[in-house]
Amino acid sequence: MTLGPDPTSERAFDEGGPTLADTGERALLEALAEIARTSSGALAIGPGDDAAVWSPEPGRDLAVSQDALVEGVDFQRWWISPRRLGARAIAIALSDLAGMGAAPVWCSATLCAPSSTCFEDVLEIQRGLSAAASAAGCAVAGGDVSAIDGPLVIDVVVGGTLMPGAVLRRDGGRPGDVVVVTGTLGRAAAGLRLLLDGGEVSEQEQAWVNAQLSPVARIAEGLQLIASGVRCGGDISDGLLVELERITDMSGCGAEIWLGRVPVEAALVSDFGAAWPDLAIGGGEDFELVATLPPSRLEKLVESWPPALAPLTVVGRLREGSGVAVLEREGGASVPPPRTTSRHFG
Amino acid sequence: MTLGPDPTSERAFDEGGPTLADTGERALLEALAEIARTSSGALAIGPGDDAAVWSPEPGRDLAVSQDALVEGVDFQRWWISPRRLGARAIAIALSDLAGMGAAPVWCSATLCAPSSTCFEDVLEIQRGLSAAASAAGCAVAGGDVSAIDGPLVIDVVVGGTLMPGAVLRRDGGRPGDVVVVTGTLGRAAAGLRLLLDGGEVSEQEQAWVNAQLSPVARIAEGLQLIASGVRCGGDISDGLLVELERITDMSGCGAEIWLGRVPVEAALVSDFGAAWPDLAIGGGEDFELVATLPPSRLEKLVESWPPALAPLTVVGRLREGSGVAVLEREGGASVPPPRTTSRHFG
Repeated sequence: MTLGPDPTSERAFDEGGPTLADTGERALLEALAEIARTSSGALAIGPGDDAAVWSPEPGRDLAVSQDALVEGVDFQRWWISPRRLGARAIAIALSDLAGMGAAPVWCSATLCAPSSTCFEDVLEIQRGLSAAASAAGCAVAGGDVSAIDGPLVIDVVVGGTLMPGAVLRRDGGRPGDVVVVTGTLGRAAAGLRLLLDGGEVSEQEQAWVNAQLSPVARIAEGLQLIASGVRCGGDISDGLLVELERITDMSGCGAEIWLGRVPVEAALVSDFGAAWPDLAIGGGEDFELVATLPPSRLEKLVESWPPALAPLTVVGRLREGSGVAVLEREGGASVPPPRTTSRHFG
Repeated sequence: MTLGPDPTSERAFDEGGPTLADTGERALLEALAEIARTSSGALAIGPGDDAAVWSPEPGRDLAVSQDALVEGVDFQRWWISPRRLGARAIAIALSDLAGMGAAPVWCSATLCAPSSTCFEDVLEIQRGLSAAASAAGCAVAGGDVSAIDGPLVIDVVVGGTLMPGAVLRRDGGRPGDVVVVTGTLGRAAAGLRLLLDGGEVSEQEQAWVNAQLSPVARIAEGLQLIASGVRCGGDISDGLLVELERITDMSGCGAEIWLGRVPVEAALVSDFGAAWPDLAIGGGEDFELVATLPPSRLEKLVESWPPALAPLTVVGRLREGSGVAVLEREGGASVPPPRTTSRHFG
């Protein structure tokens, strides 16, 4: 099959119709607010006023995170439909709440688009965002819209609640902790590489492309980690290696990753050969979670882990010192660290 | 004097030094978080984790608003220093909280910048934002940073608290209400026109330019309106006419503005002649507040208004029907509505 806009029946970017310059700001704001209001029921005041208003549940803390997607840096228009792009933008922001063990409550999004953008494309982005927000129990509070003489920018803010102290912190790790991850790693990075290379793809490869385009935040997994008493972790947005470096930096210790234990699809190893660790621990955007916990608590965590959730795998441990070493296996030889991919300011 | 970068001792944009491409993302994130942490004391978890965490005061509602500034649409680099730009971005977002009568508590900001941007420019933006946030009692929770092949984008989210129900809503107006505004109108729009025209400016004109570049959110005025029992209003970001249209639309009534009562500087009328209403009620970005209230409550509101706050002026009233009419004076002849300026999707 030919790689291209994801094979869905959704509208692709730039299919035509009136542009933002044709319809003007007022019509746009009204149409966006109408879509947002389908997902705003939980708010005291929804989109349309100076600010949205929400009545927090007493006794909860509020977690806030913000994440931007920029055309040409994070995506290309031919990769993705506008509806999926909206869903992807909210999923990426929600993943940070998952990485705290918080429950999503509200979100807000700014969209910057050139005047030549199709009006319908912008509504599709908002529809994708609102539907994905709703599915995560998240009310759309509003946002902003602006012209830009440049690429599309979607900037999403999410708010979630947690019980005071019951949070997955980056500074909560201790030497001796085991390191666990959810799901399998490297699929989204493989999909990104295929998108960047272009050309024909197999059905397997298209599944990796879809993993890149349509991530799902591990909200339930974050809540389950919290319920099991885990207090250190985060989401793997920039790859396991980078996230573990942040955790060890903030926890004041080091870590080792056991390469042979990293959960990947067999096809990823056979397709990418020796480069698979670059994808699985150097590449990001699977939006799985990583957590650390004392080994004495591991058995109970695994036993009580609901089978419907993304599975847990032990991939290494924290240790004294600093930095993250990559070993062939527990107690095995050290291997050169895989290349990490940062697409920013390179 | 020659119009140009605002006459301050602050660093202007593009004065040189290493760029974001030189220093990389990690150094940038660390430097930004270090500046943000100077204003993050009120948070349970500050910048540096997946999300920031805040413990809300019990019994308060949370107001959330988001506002983006885009280079080439909202500002040009030669207009403003990066430090003022950061302060302006937070002020504009805070103005929406003022327009709800909320007290600011936290903020978060995304910055998209090309790789060629000077590292120091970005830090200056963050310093301006953090200092202005601190001055408004607002903790900096974090945000995101991204490369962009295009203009600078600063997208700010603010959160504030209010007592449930004690809020300035756009749908709270009733026919017969008087319409009041804070401060004087048209100065920022005059400043924008001067910036767009370029050339030499007088000292008076430079003051208008400064009004455009360095707005202050009317937080205390919003809180005072709430304390006085006012329940309908908003901030005047897009001009009095546009804001009053939103209020009448959502309140299901009409309004009239009495042109002779609009508070302006005499120099604005003499400098701009017949075009002054385009600036004072058609132009925006003074970030003053507008509110409506039953006439029976006006005397008490005015009497109890603290002299240190921006003064209140009655400029019209709500009436049956729909739309906003501009009259010469109360009971006077109707005049053609001034031109409103929208810089988006024109």
